Amino acid sequence: MREIFQQELEQVADDLAAMASLVRTAMQDATTALFTQDLGLAETVIERDRRIDALQDGVDQQCVTLLARQQPVATDLRVVVSAMRMSSTIERMGDLARHIASIARGRFPDPALPPLAEPLFRSIADATNAVASDVVDLLESRDVELAHRVMADDDELDRLHQETFRIILSPSADATAFTPQQIVDITLLGRYFERFGDHGTSVARRILFLVTGETVSSTAGVR
Amino acid sequence: MREIFQQELEQVADDLAAMASLVRTAMQDATTALFTQDLGLAETVIERDRRIDALQDGVDQQCVTLLARQQPVATDLRVVVSAMRMSSTIERMGDLARHIASIARGRFPDPALPPLAEPLFRSIADATNAVASDVVDLLESRDVELAHRVMADDDELDRLHQETFRIILSPSADATAFTPQQIVDITLLGRYFERFGDHGTSVARRILFLVTGETVSSTAGVR
Repeated sequence: MREIFQQELEQVADDLAAMASLVRTAMQDATTALFTQDLGLAETVIERDRRIDALQDGVDQQCVTLLARQQPVATDLRVVVSAMRMSSTIERMGDLARHIASIARGRFPDPALPPLAEPLFRSIADATNAVASDVVDLLESRDVELAHRVMADDDELDRLHQETFRIILSPSADATAFTPQQIVDITLLGRYFERFGDHGTSVARRILFLVTGETVSSTAGVR
Repeated sequence: MREIFQQELEQVADDLAAMASLVRTAMQDATTALFTQDLGLAETVIERDRRIDALQDGVDQQCVTLLARQQPVATDLRVVVSAMRMSSTIERMGDLARHIASIARGRFPDPALPPLAEPLFRSIADATNAVASDVVDLLESRDVELAHRVMADDDELDRLHQETFRIILSPSADATAFTPQQIVDITLLGRYFERFGDHGTSVARRILFLVTGETVSSTAGVR
């Protein structure tokens, strides 16, 4: 019974890692599409999001089956419940990559980002892709240091997100520096990237809790 | 054992309804604060969000305890798992009400919404408050018709959300009709209201599934 439980739990862990890996690719491709006006790549990200959704459904069903058949308690129970929560968080990260790809697609053949905003968003994309990569590694390694690094990346992302408003609202910037469409896109893109980081922190918190029993406030770093 | 399970489950259901009720009040107050520049009310919404977070922690702990002690299977298990998911969704709805209150507070003593956008946002607020109210009633009644009404309200909200972009981007509108800050605020407010509706639909889907066994796609109506 115990052995079956461990095997099934490993399958869940593998599927979560597979989801995170698809999300990492989705975010890398979404940001590439955003900076290079690559319509095909944007459409690929949008299309492939279904795979992440399907994996989530699978993880959730496996977890419910595990709960019903194995009736885990204590740490085992916590691991299953955490897996369900992380699957929904990671699925959401995939949605955000898809939203970014949708904006890239919607502005094609023009770039969504005006030149003035591009350097900042390159930094944001780097921090976001770092979160996406670290979440994959974290799910595999359960390394506490890595969990803290995700949270630090997310803090940096929050800081960069605030910069997006500074760029839009800077009184030194000409009022007509950006078109309304560009302001909408910068605002939404900033929000999507920032939320992606929040979700990364949420995964990091759950892993930390599983490994150390240390609770990090559910609102820490999460907007 | 069975009787204790039912009692504990009722407590969870009561707490979920209490969360939804606090969220309904939060959204009503946030929208009032938005339209009347009521700084005190905006701050009350922001402050009170902690209560919703605390209730969520309580629901989640109760559910884990229920799973460990009662080891429910079949429908009972599904009810507990759904409760955990709904608690996180409802908590998120509270966050969105708080975000709306934060924008109202941030622009005080000015209105966040320019006169040109106010009528549309009054319609959006009405549809959103209808979702918030219906979710409270739905958690109490588990009425299938009500679940469908929430989803219809959310469809209307999605339609109104698209209108926000029309207002911002209308070529007939003077490019300087809105300040950059106003465009940012309209964009974010639109997004917050729209997400609130999505989460309402998510609760409606879960209730529908519990009552009828009918699965509504996890992505239907959810952005």
